[in-house]
Amino acid sequence: MANQVKKVTARAPVNIAVIKYWGKNDEKLITPINNSISATLSIDDLCATTTISISPMYQADQFWLNGEEQTISENKRLSHCLQKFRALKSEIKDHLKIESHNNFPTAAGLASSAAGYACLISALGSLFGISDSKQLSILARQGSGSACRSVYGGFVEWFAGNDSETSFAAQIVDENHWPSLRVIILIVNDKEKDVPSTSAMKRSVETSELIRHRAENVVPERCKKMREAIKTKDFEKFAELTMKDSNQFHAIAQDTYPPVRYMNDVSWSIVSLIHGYNDFVGSTKVAYTFDAGPNAVLFMEEDQVGKFMIAVNHFFPINQLDCLFRGQPIPKETINQGMIDYLSKKINIKEDSLKGIIYTKIGCGPKIAAQESN
Amino acid sequence: MANQVKKVTARAPVNIAVIKYWGKNDEKLITPINNSISATLSIDDLCATTTISISPMYQADQFWLNGEEQTISENKRLSHCLQKFRALKSEIKDHLKIESHNNFPTAAGLASSAAGYACLISALGSLFGISDSKQLSILARQGSGSACRSVYGGFVEWFAGNDSETSFAAQIVDENHWPSLRVIILIVNDKEKDVPSTSAMKRSVETSELIRHRAENVVPERCKKMREAIKTKDFEKFAELTMKDSNQFHAIAQDTYPPVRYMNDVSWSIVSLIHGYNDFVGSTKVAYTFDAGPNAVLFMEEDQVGKFMIAVNHFFPINQLDCLFRGQPIPKETINQGMIDYLSKKINIKEDSLKGIIYTKIGCGPKIAAQESN
Repeated sequence: MANQVKKVTARAPVNIAVIKYWGKNDEKLITPINNSISATLSIDDLCATTTISISPMYQADQFWLNGEEQTISENKRLSHCLQKFRALKSEIKDHLKIESHNNFPTAAGLASSAAGYACLISALGSLFGISDSKQLSILARQGSGSACRSVYGGFVEWFAGNDSETSFAAQIVDENHWPSLRVIILIVNDKEKDVPSTSAMKRSVETSELIRHRAENVVPERCKKMREAIKTKDFEKFAELTMKDSNQFHAIAQDTYPPVRYMNDVSWSIVSLIHGYNDFVGSTKVAYTFDAGPNAVLFMEEDQVGKFMIAVNHFFPINQLDCLFRGQPIPKETINQGMIDYLSKKINIKEDSLKGIIYTKIGCGPKIAAQESN
Repeated sequence: MANQVKKVTARAPVNIAVIKYWGKNDEKLITPINNSISATLSIDDLCATTTISISPMYQADQFWLNGEEQTISENKRLSHCLQKFRALKSEIKDHLKIESHNNFPTAAGLASSAAGYACLISALGSLFGISDSKQLSILARQGSGSACRSVYGGFVEWFAGNDSETSFAAQIVDENHWPSLRVIILIVNDKEKDVPSTSAMKRSVETSELIRHRAENVVPERCKKMREAIKTKDFEKFAELTMKDSNQFHAIAQDTYPPVRYMNDVSWSIVSLIHGYNDFVGSTKVAYTFDAGPNAVLFMEEDQVGKFMIAVNHFFPINQLDCLFRGQPIPKETINQGMIDYLSKKINIKEDSLKGIIYTKIGCGPKIAAQESN
């Protein structure tokens, strides 16, 4: 009993906001200035995996991220998370070994901290016997704001709240609600330096003269309409709100001083491609959203995937050998020359502008993959 | 007497807004949703020239733009302008020959319609005996909104007003007020298609959820501060307001649906260069503003020109043979390696990204260059 090791492995998903979180009310507690809504992506294609073991034999807490040991004391948010769990279950005194990794390349520029913290919290929850989702969401939020949304599958809303206890996420619908919905991530080759989102967000709150108006007057109505669009599976409404909110988030970044810019010329060509494609087909069949980086996350129903990807492959040809690809095979369709001709009037071909494509769908929340004691 | 020809030649300047005009209250009258403030650029470097002759011998009104005859009836705004003048001076019944051209290439993507209409109105004013600046400003506004500001030199404010008679520009200070101020225009090579600003502006008013907040809550305070900064020649305050307002205008364009984007990757590199340069020297010495296109218009005091252009020449090297250059020679300075090293951390060298450079200053309003009767 004295040298027993208890071990838990959890997997947790990435989530992509369709109504964006941008701006904190409280930097330490990570409470936001507005509600946000996200889609949880399938764990099969993108996920964080965390294994935690606990044993009276361990001399100290230890943490490895993607194989490299990190100094826990230097990671304030991680230390804070561990303290919170220990405060909740003071009877558990043994040390922990935490190993975390992502199944997607960090070079892809996809926010991995949300999945990472949701995963850590799920594994700790399992180990410490805490299973209340709201409580886990609050704990995840304090690691990385949007991690509180990765605690659930399907579509999720994060309520801004007034303090730490009222700022948590809840599921709007689960991952089985809208089975035809697909997600395609276009990973954009980027040579410019990023502004870390934590500092950029802080600067926006301090300097943008539009951000409060967005938080107080625009987002509440958009969240209401977005919930409704998701519940009724109204793709056109969902798509328009998603695109408008992505645009407004980048508008706020630009209204920051000095300005913050995440979308580059290729991102903008993808925007042109999508509006052009929707114009060509005569209704809104594809939606884009961009996070704090140049990559495009696209939503569409399954029947559009093959047709739309013809356009992507034409205007953004990629070297298949170098390309990162994840997910299911994309359905093959014959080329529609009328569409290509129409889009050629709006955008130019961009060689080697994409680094990879991920084809995925809406998925479940964190899973406990393995539990063992020996 | 019956075959007398009376001829007038006017020259008028380009103006660049430092508090931006974006959005109309009335599409036909061209009254804006907010006040705007501009700097008039020197007529020696950029100007429109219009020659109008009037004679009882002429059978019909005729119009040539940059040497090519245009059909007046197809140009609603021009027809409207001529009607207005004829209504004011109904005793003048003879027909007109109008020849207009710009001394800067249209390919430069610099707004030429403001200079063009201010020039037309000045020449017509001279010919029809109308010299009241307010009245000329109102007439110019109806040709091209911001033309109402090119009726004056120095710094100029356009009052939004409530109707056509109250929406006009007035001079804040004349062209001799701030003699050390310099303007450098970096003309950016651009391969993408532009969205015409008239339609983009209309779409912003219809779809942006931030534009009214900007017009009603942000701009009035900014105009007040800008007037003060100009009157006191407070470069730092002037520069910060100019940059913030340029950023906010592009934020509104991005918040439009579908979004409108004028600044490309090179424009953004210029933004990075300027914030980096200001960081390096420790205070705000250079300001940028971008209109509805990718070109940067920079303001700085004369003592910065040589030092700053070292950085421009390093990071945006141009093929001198192909380069369009106008204005006075730029003072030569020795390279500051510390500055180059510092900026290299923020931006990459962009070969062939500039098409030209214009080095100019604040200038006077329209001039009647020649008047003759024979």
